[in-house]
Amino acid sequence: MKYDIIVIGGSAAGLIAAMTSRKLYKDKKILVIKKLDKELVPCGIPYIFNTLGSVENDFMGIEEKFKANNIDLLIDEVIDGNTEKKKIFTKNGEEFEYDKLVIATGSTPRVIPIPGHDLENVMTIPKNYKYLKKVHEKIKDAKDVVIIGGGFIGVEVADEIKKSGKNVTLIELEDHLLPASFDKEFGEIAKKEIESDNVKVLLCSKVKEIFGNGKVEKVILENGEELPADVVIIATGYKPNTELAKKMGIKITELGFIETDDYMRTSVEDVYAAGDCVQHKDYFTGKPSRLMLASAAVFDARIAASNLYKLKLLRTNKGSLNAYSTMIGGKAFAAAGITEKVAKNEGFDIVVGRAEVVDRHPGKFEDASKIILKLIFSKECGLLLGAQIVGGKSVGEIINIISLAIQKEVTAKDLFTMQIGTHPLLTAAPTIYPLTLAAEQALAQM
Amino acid sequence: MKYDIIVIGGSAAGLIAAMTSRKLYKDKKILVIKKLDKELVPCGIPYIFNTLGSVENDFMGIEEKFKANNIDLLIDEVIDGNTEKKKIFTKNGEEFEYDKLVIATGSTPRVIPIPGHDLENVMTIPKNYKYLKKVHEKIKDAKDVVIIGGGFIGVEVADEIKKSGKNVTLIELEDHLLPASFDKEFGEIAKKEIESDNVKVLLCSKVKEIFGNGKVEKVILENGEELPADVVIIATGYKPNTELAKKMGIKITELGFIETDDYMRTSVEDVYAAGDCVQHKDYFTGKPSRLMLASAAVFDARIAASNLYKLKLLRTNKGSLNAYSTMIGGKAFAAAGITEKVAKNEGFDIVVGRAEVVDRHPGKFEDASKIILKLIFSKECGLLLGAQIVGGKSVGEIINIISLAIQKEVTAKDLFTMQIGTHPLLTAAPTIYPLTLAAEQALAQM
Repeated sequence: MKYDIIVIGGSAAGLIAAMTSRKLYKDKKILVIKKLDKELVPCGIPYIFNTLGSVENDFMGIEEKFKANNIDLLIDEVIDGNTEKKKIFTKNGEEFEYDKLVIATGSTPRVIPIPGHDLENVMTIPKNYKYLKKVHEKIKDAKDVVIIGGGFIGVEVADEIKKSGKNVTLIELEDHLLPASFDKEFGEIAKKEIESDNVKVLLCSKVKEIFGNGKVEKVILENGEELPADVVIIATGYKPNTELAKKMGIKITELGFIETDDYMRTSVEDVYAAGDCVQHKDYFTGKPSRLMLASAAVFDARIAASNLYKLKLLRTNKGSLNAYSTMIGGKAFAAAGITEKVAKNEGFDIVVGRAEVVDRHPGKFEDASKIILKLIFSKECGLLLGAQIVGGKSVGEIINIISLAIQKEVTAKDLFTMQIGTHPLLTAAPTIYPLTLAAEQALAQM
Repeated sequence: MKYDIIVIGGSAAGLIAAMTSRKLYKDKKILVIKKLDKELVPCGIPYIFNTLGSVENDFMGIEEKFKANNIDLLIDEVIDGNTEKKKIFTKNGEEFEYDKLVIATGSTPRVIPIPGHDLENVMTIPKNYKYLKKVHEKIKDAKDVVIIGGGFIGVEVADEIKKSGKNVTLIELEDHLLPASFDKEFGEIAKKEIESDNVKVLLCSKVKEIFGNGKVEKVILENGEELPADVVIIATGYKPNTELAKKMGIKITELGFIETDDYMRTSVEDVYAAGDCVQHKDYFTGKPSRLMLASAAVFDARIAASNLYKLKLLRTNKGSLNAYSTMIGGKAFAAAGITEKVAKNEGFDIVVGRAEVVDRHPGKFEDASKIILKLIFSKECGLLLGAQIVGGKSVGEIINIISLAIQKEVTAKDLFTMQIGTHPLLTAAPTIYPLTLAAEQALAQM
């Protein structure tokens, strides 16, 4: 059977590649092929353990969207393809011809080869609802849970599982939590927050062995410490799913991702890629990045779909900003651009501006929270390079002001004199708006 | 006595003019002269009636800030000046010489001359804590309160007074609430919200007379309807305080505001002005605007202070964006730029993009709210001209993404492919982020 556009994968990137294609190309025949019959909201996964309460409450419901938008959906796995004949082949023996192909095969957990990683009850957090149902069951029966990896997934899962009443220990190799997006001082705030929820945090700690007789019993650290464990969750990152792309002869980067150009075209004609399986690059340095975020996947997918039939320079794709937010304990954390540490390592001459303000005014309103903001600017030209922020829930959108600011090449002066809207019940006072204050402090050092 | 910098007024503009001056000019002698010993957070005023509970809880505490920053403060009123000798004279008979003068005298309620407006218990909402204490007392003793004017102050005060358990009727001349910043469909949502709090709203209604024997008893409308009233609050706007400027021979605009250039310089050398007393202009049309917002006042004050000694083109002052947010009932409302109605009246060829999404993902989280967003673009070039939004509290910062977007000349295409950060507990899903969706919808019409 022939389709104009075939999308492989149905998570964030696959969904948006198909939906954007439908909007742009009304008459094209579109097919999405995906492995599982149900798809999860990827960033919602950590919350199945307590806040959402079940895997089912995190279903994305894309099946209805496809139906309503005249997009065919096949639950099957694409196992090979022929890029000359523009055909793909599925596990169930079906064969499809495509005019344009979008590979959005995503990622799976990367398990570091610690001795004992294959014991029973040593689990990961994949984007697979059937597997996650099992994890959920095992956690319910557990008393002691050890989580290896203090990145976003590790921290979010630890916080959630703790809330469901378990003993939780979180182990991180680096000297602070969330090292990929935050500098140490913010990692320390995150640690305090999660500790106030009674999660035990071990920094600078390396796992020597996961021990058990068939089933996990304890985690042994390099320093000899032993942690009892009914369940261990390995949250040490994800690897791109590129088996199919490799089989099809599509170029893979040194880090193991699918290589694309700025229009999300792979090395093979009429084959595009989007999402976690794609090699991203850093916004400022251009260096290859291991970034995997649903928001970045969606961005890729829009670019890919927009350029399927004619190249449209919607915008220059400078790289990934790594705009990110999360909740830890009762606080929202967010970051975008590069950290102070990375900026210094890369050799940037930088200036840091900080602000600590209350996000309501006067600060006497019940839901007022303290915001701590750090802005990193290039000293020479004043351009904004990155930001980190912790505070109340509005932080989730403040990071998008910053994200837009970086994308539009905003300087400290621009931010200092930026017109803003404020309201007592919603924001900090105009006199101490955090972006303005931090920019002002940075300007004083330039 | 001689000062390098004298600031007249101590609300948002005066405070920031003095504080920014201190930061920029470490060795200058700075004096602030203001009428009252205590200053209120201006936007917090409506909330004294219930949420804050008292006038005192809305005090800004600027006195301590001035002390800590070596800024002299005098409680007195400047009643005249001599711009040739660069002197000012106060009500208490003091005389000061200035090198640079910043006039930030603010605004007072504009009372429309309705018969009966001078009856007892007919009140306004000035930025004066002593008067507001009286209003607060009168409201406490009242059963029926009528508020004339459905702009921001009228709506916020009505909502608050209703929450304190009074019968409240809100009267608006136009066919929807908040007509200065919102189109009719958003005004209707605001009406529903405030009505769900049991405020009675009368649109297209004009007051014929405020009636009473010494003290107000009822409000009589042009259509004959009579509303019982123990207290009437007139919230029909504010007029700039320009008596001093006029006496000093400073140029006043046709609308009665102080005229300044883009650096906030008045027509008289070394005299600057900032805040509500200054003539603002619209960002897109350049037309004179009656805008009075604390956030705009703060923006003025930063520009003024920055340019006291040498002109610094921090940014071209294109005019006021009118970025604004508020809470009505349980919903946050925000707007920036121009409305669809104004855009059409001015002759802009526009395209409108809309989005209705939930601000958490999946939408099953307890604090999820629906966001309704409207973006107004220029059809020709795709530039963003304005936005209106209603939803949960994050709307207060989403409007600042939009505000920055307008200031950085963002187009529908930019917004459609803007990189964003999202999180289940903090924002809409990346697949349906409202700015992206509304931009996409607008693009489809271009």
